[in-house]
Amino acid sequence: MKTPAIILVRPQLGENIGACARAMANFGCRELRLVAPRDGWPNPKAADTANKALDVIDDAVLFATAKEAVADCQFVLATTARSRAVNMPVLDTRQAMSALRGRLAKGERCAILFGPERTGLENEEVALADAVLSIPVSEDYTSLNISHAVAVVLSEFYASSSHLLRGSMDSRDKPENDGIMGANKHEIDGLFGQLETALDEVNFWRVPEKKETMWRHVRAALTRAKLTSQEVATWRGIIRALKEGR
Amino acid sequence: MKTPAIILVRPQLGENIGACARAMANFGCRELRLVAPRDGWPNPKAADTANKALDVIDDAVLFATAKEAVADCQFVLATTARSRAVNMPVLDTRQAMSALRGRLAKGERCAILFGPERTGLENEEVALADAVLSIPVSEDYTSLNISHAVAVVLSEFYASSSHLLRGSMDSRDKPENDGIMGANKHEIDGLFGQLETALDEVNFWRVPEKKETMWRHVRAALTRAKLTSQEVATWRGIIRALKEGR
Repeated sequence: MKTPAIILVRPQLGENIGACARAMANFGCRELRLVAPRDGWPNPKAADTANKALDVIDDAVLFATAKEAVADCQFVLATTARSRAVNMPVLDTRQAMSALRGRLAKGERCAILFGPERTGLENEEVALADAVLSIPVSEDYTSLNISHAVAVVLSEFYASSSHLLRGSMDSRDKPENDGIMGANKHEIDGLFGQLETALDEVNFWRVPEKKETMWRHVRAALTRAKLTSQEVATWRGIIRALKEGR
Repeated sequence: MKTPAIILVRPQLGENIGACARAMANFGCRELRLVAPRDGWPNPKAADTANKALDVIDDAVLFATAKEAVADCQFVLATTARSRAVNMPVLDTRQAMSALRGRLAKGERCAILFGPERTGLENEEVALADAVLSIPVSEDYTSLNISHAVAVVLSEFYASSSHLLRGSMDSRDKPENDGIMGANKHEIDGLFGQLETALDEVNFWRVPEKKETMWRHVRAALTRAKLTSQEVATWRGIIRALKEGR
């Protein structure tokens, strides 16, 4: 899978750089570029918080300016929390990752810019990009931690790329596949027959007129459970055991 | 917008609790529940890292066990990094948030469980849930920071909910509407307790070592059925009738 470079522009805290590296590794992205990190480089605090993503930290490449860091790229996204007046496309996370995948698939070098804590990217740095990536956040609290922003963006990249690899454009296309292979109707019917007989024998229905409706409700609940063959056997055992007292 | 409760089960580092609170506020979620935080509560380190999301920390509610924390909920997701052999639906982030939105729209109380750093949720805690939420991550590095997991899940919740509010969501993404208002976990737990006692009394388990796994499977099937309060009452009547023979 082709992946974008992640460019942290003037990052301040080493801990945040490490946390970004960790999020990158979680979602299969390993190319980290650092533009003028405030506390110099290497930074032991970055290594500490990177957890097992040390290779991402070790392989990070330093640049003096954002312009140099994107020089070899054909498609660049600039992440901003606040919307700004920019005359370029503003994409949400899903739209941006869709565009990014298209560019990567064409063989283009791609990168995502993340600005410094507190201030974000300068307008000149945003202007280096082809599009703005604006992560939808609550108006009540718009300040995303930088590593959270990286995790949110790359999780969408990874999940949507995985869907593509699985041959599905979008998980919403498909009914949920919960991985459970249900028992067949014959097995279910055997369970129903046993339960109905057992309930008849203990005079469960009391008011005969109510049986039809009640029994339909009982079966509906068991049907919704989508029991497996194994579970049908277990439940038949439960009914037998309860009925016969071991 | 209705939002889920976020439940952190036995969280270790106060810094992580604070970072989770911050991510929650970024995505409009403010109801934090804490189950037995390792370093006690309140924790000044949580407040430090919560940044401006202090109200989320201040309003956090403490519980002794995960079971108590979900007692008032009708729909619960359990977040796990590693896939496990569970007989319940396993949903990716997008599928899980789609299901969650459907439940919230019906007026159900919903919650998302996140396990402790390193170890994750215990099997017994996963068994409290209606479905497993498995965030797609790279096989090379599956260990997500807990606040990153919260940010990834809630950003998808927020973004997809915003799409719905804007009326632009894909028509394929329909909130789940099966017309069923599920019983809450307290009612379900009452049913489980009665069934377990009844099965103990008839020596159903035979091989004691097998009880834990078998019992988890039995509960999983009933959980998948999404019983209503009325159905819980019916099933309690069924168990009593079978057990006592009218």
